[in-house]
Amino acid sequence: MSDANNIHGESKDYLLPGERIDELQRNGYKIIQNSKKFCFGMDAVLLSGFVKVREGERVLDLGTGTGIIPILLEAKTRGEHFTGLELQEESADMARRSVSLNGLEQKISIVTGDIKEAGTIFGAASFHVVTSNPPYMNNLHGLKNPDLPKAIARHEIYCTLEDVVRETARVLKPGGRFYLVHRPFRLIEIINTLTAYKLEPKRMKMVHPFIDKEPNMVLIEAVKGGGSMISVEPPLIVYKEINQYTDEIYDIYGY
Amino acid sequence: MSDANNIHGESKDYLLPGERIDELQRNGYKIIQNSKKFCFGMDAVLLSGFVKVREGERVLDLGTGTGIIPILLEAKTRGEHFTGLELQEESADMARRSVSLNGLEQKISIVTGDIKEAGTIFGAASFHVVTSNPPYMNNLHGLKNPDLPKAIARHEIYCTLEDVVRETARVLKPGGRFYLVHRPFRLIEIINTLTAYKLEPKRMKMVHPFIDKEPNMVLIEAVKGGGSMISVEPPLIVYKEINQYTDEIYDIYGY
Repeated sequence: MSDANNIHGESKDYLLPGERIDELQRNGYKIIQNSKKFCFGMDAVLLSGFVKVREGERVLDLGTGTGIIPILLEAKTRGEHFTGLELQEESADMARRSVSLNGLEQKISIVTGDIKEAGTIFGAASFHVVTSNPPYMNNLHGLKNPDLPKAIARHEIYCTLEDVVRETARVLKPGGRFYLVHRPFRLIEIINTLTAYKLEPKRMKMVHPFIDKEPNMVLIEAVKGGGSMISVEPPLIVYKEINQYTDEIYDIYGY
Repeated sequence: MSDANNIHGESKDYLLPGERIDELQRNGYKIIQNSKKFCFGMDAVLLSGFVKVREGERVLDLGTGTGIIPILLEAKTRGEHFTGLELQEESADMARRSVSLNGLEQKISIVTGDIKEAGTIFGAASFHVVTSNPPYMNNLHGLKNPDLPKAIARHEIYCTLEDVVRETARVLKPGGRFYLVHRPFRLIEIINTLTAYKLEPKRMKMVHPFIDKEPNMVLIEAVKGGGSMISVEPPLIVYKEINQYTDEIYDIYGY
């Protein structure tokens, strides 16, 4: 939300050309971004507001990008440790520098690796919580350059929804929780895939830009081995009027 | 919505003890109800507002109760013919008298029969549209008298969700549409059951009593043999404030 380039003193040393440092409004934390390559969206922030992490729990974020989700969850929860897995080394390096900039090396690890190999990298039943803001788009037609960093983050070029769900089911402990943000138009596929891998959706929240508009995000909590009964929450509305966020959004962003 | 007992002239002849006639605010239509046994709820009215019936289409309502859904759809759409299937003869008889009271014998048929036999009663691929406001509750614990008319309408005593979906899949033509109202807590089971029978959910709308409350109904349109992509609609909010309906609710009720 903050566009201020808070570059003073030693912070500059953390930056590569084209990068900037933004404030996160949480614990004084900052994050490094590059608007041409890797930036977090509102999706990641809303997911971090939806996720519940209890004291002592270990958390894995699949496809962590800038590291925004582990950094926000470290600030907001009493989880024991947070790991971010990221395929693109350039992005993983940037996330690692953000972790270092905030002095969080003991709490957050950024691992370069492929979501499709998460079960092998981390071992079965190794996390209490998995989060993911995965690529949303499964239609690769018309994609001009599928190897651009942004394309890899947004389109299912290197991993599909099923890859994310399958690996989540492997690395979660029994009773562990998976938190996902995705696009509502894929809701049926999401639910069918989750239940096929015994991740039972237990909580769902639709995010609508305005109260009278269709939702553009869906937040889902699924429990490994849970029973069949879901709690659908009140909708999250982003804007009261044009350019005016609702109180709930300001609250999630920490203003 | 109207509680007025509009009993004048010959209408009285249609009534059994304990019954009353209510106005429907559509085409001057009326409906017979018995508050001790069979009354329609807001669920049926909101479902009739969500259903789309095109000119010339044939419609089946599974578990029609008072016949409210066929009667409202006859008023609101240009469908060719409407059939209501109802297990309880007492309720089917009441629905038939409502059809007769409105002079709709040529447009609406009420059939006494079991949802579990719908495919056999009507034959495969015999309808363009199926609607249902089925029993919601699958927990029969604590049910004092499972043979009371209201208990049969509300609890899965004589038919389950899967029975409704399986028979719908049988009687629908390819590309035909199924419209369902149900409780959100069963959403995952509903979606898994629909897709297992090749009824692909294509449209969904949550109904919230107030904007900041959890939804208490979900409206779903599924297409027989449809592709995997759903449109989630803006939420339907019932109350602006206590005892004050929103404009959308007044519109659906026809005020």
